[in-house]
Amino acid sequence: MRYALAVEYDGGEFRGWQRLTASGTRDDQSSVQSTLENALSRLANAQVDTICAGRTDAGVHAQCQVVHFDSDAARDPRSWVLGTTANLPPAVCVRWCQPMPEDFHARFSARARRYRYRLVNRMVRPALNRQTLSWERRPLDADAMHRAAQALLGENDFNAFRSVQCQSPHGFRNLHSIRVVREGEQVYVDVQANAFLHHMVRNIVGSLLVIGRGDQPESWMAELLAGKDRTVAGPTAPPDGLVFVSPLYPAHWNLPAEVTLPEALSSPSR
Amino acid sequence: MRYALAVEYDGGEFRGWQRLTASGTRDDQSSVQSTLENALSRLANAQVDTICAGRTDAGVHAQCQVVHFDSDAARDPRSWVLGTTANLPPAVCVRWCQPMPEDFHARFSARARRYRYRLVNRMVRPALNRQTLSWERRPLDADAMHRAAQALLGENDFNAFRSVQCQSPHGFRNLHSIRVVREGEQVYVDVQANAFLHHMVRNIVGSLLVIGRGDQPESWMAELLAGKDRTVAGPTAPPDGLVFVSPLYPAHWNLPAEVTLPEALSSPSR
Repeated sequence: MRYALAVEYDGGEFRGWQRLTASGTRDDQSSVQSTLENALSRLANAQVDTICAGRTDAGVHAQCQVVHFDSDAARDPRSWVLGTTANLPPAVCVRWCQPMPEDFHARFSARARRYRYRLVNRMVRPALNRQTLSWERRPLDADAMHRAAQALLGENDFNAFRSVQCQSPHGFRNLHSIRVVREGEQVYVDVQANAFLHHMVRNIVGSLLVIGRGDQPESWMAELLAGKDRTVAGPTAPPDGLVFVSPLYPAHWNLPAEVTLPEALSSPSR
Repeated sequence: MRYALAVEYDGGEFRGWQRLTASGTRDDQSSVQSTLENALSRLANAQVDTICAGRTDAGVHAQCQVVHFDSDAARDPRSWVLGTTANLPPAVCVRWCQPMPEDFHARFSARARRYRYRLVNRMVRPALNRQTLSWERRPLDADAMHRAAQALLGENDFNAFRSVQCQSPHGFRNLHSIRVVREGEQVYVDVQANAFLHHMVRNIVGSLLVIGRGDQPESWMAELLAGKDRTVAGPTAPPDGLVFVSPLYPAHWNLPAEVTLPEALSSPSR
């Protein structure tokens, strides 16, 4: 039986999603994946392996990470949610679980991913909610950042914004939307793409911050994209403020609304 | 020279605002007050004592606590903010500092206080942002809670909602506004009063939760208020979700907008 499972976690307490090796380190509690698999396996009384929609780096959080796994254990969805959460440390919980057809794949069935980067823009570092906020002390022009970011929309080679460790064979991704919004002292960057390269969100945010501080013109974002050269773009923004909001799946999978594309965008041709 | 200072803190790492004793425990880092006074004193090279607008309990947070203190140290406001914050642990920071007339008093000059209580209402406990969220697993009717809460408005004896440790000579407080709002899985309670009794916000929220779960009718809130009996009201809600948003001062003090009453409400007669 295949299941889809939604996981929420505070990435500040882990060194990233992925467990170190496929074998041998099953007891490793420093990755979210091994922590989750241990909790699922204890409930199933058998080894459970998971595949996720989007691997997150050390320190990056998830509001609704989706994984799939196979198990013959006789557990209803409610038991998978409550029983697994009971086996998890405070920094992780399971939000929902749903039985799925055998051809559902958390990674390959996902048509899009959404991220939110959140920072406090003021003279002093944040104390309250600092676990999920980054900090920029110099005043940011969020409107300029938003306008500059629109140059990234569409199917582009994002080589300028991928890390040297990125294992993707090419840099092409389809960026669906990006929005920069100020709410008082906080600035948010909401971004959605079909998929992301390694460090892509944090590298985009790092370059937007250079523009927001007034150190480069708004046109710089388009220049960086066209240049495809990582070495001239802004520094990688810290992980603390980054949340993987959720993957998005076509409507025919009948998953909860928060991970489902609008019907009009769910056609296979998109 | 007298100063007003705005402090933000994550109350989960302290056993409350107040230091244990007036003397002797200056090095105690378990209260926000002693932690702040140590940082201020190091910057001033002299003992600095503070008086706050509203003492918070163990585990309760503050977005903008205001204190006043006197010091002859030659420091400008920017130095008080940055220098003090540099001396503070990650869970506390100073947001702003302003020189004030000698008759300003953080507690007695405040005309009102605002609190926000925030909880996640779903089957499983929160993982992300759990430091500042409480949790209620049973479905809550936020609209019913909001309607019930309106019975508390105005000058009332809040004896039904004060702790047995409360040291106030009477239970009368003027509740200016209370609002219960649902945003997806989260429910907020925003409340403003001239001042609050010990545990008053958490006891009000605890009783509203009983109504929200459907275990008491909406009219129960008015009954509790009229009965003035703490022993029949709901249990005290946990501190995690409670944030002291800010005190409010009359406009003539020329403090930042976030702690200033609208001009029309700033007259001394109110």
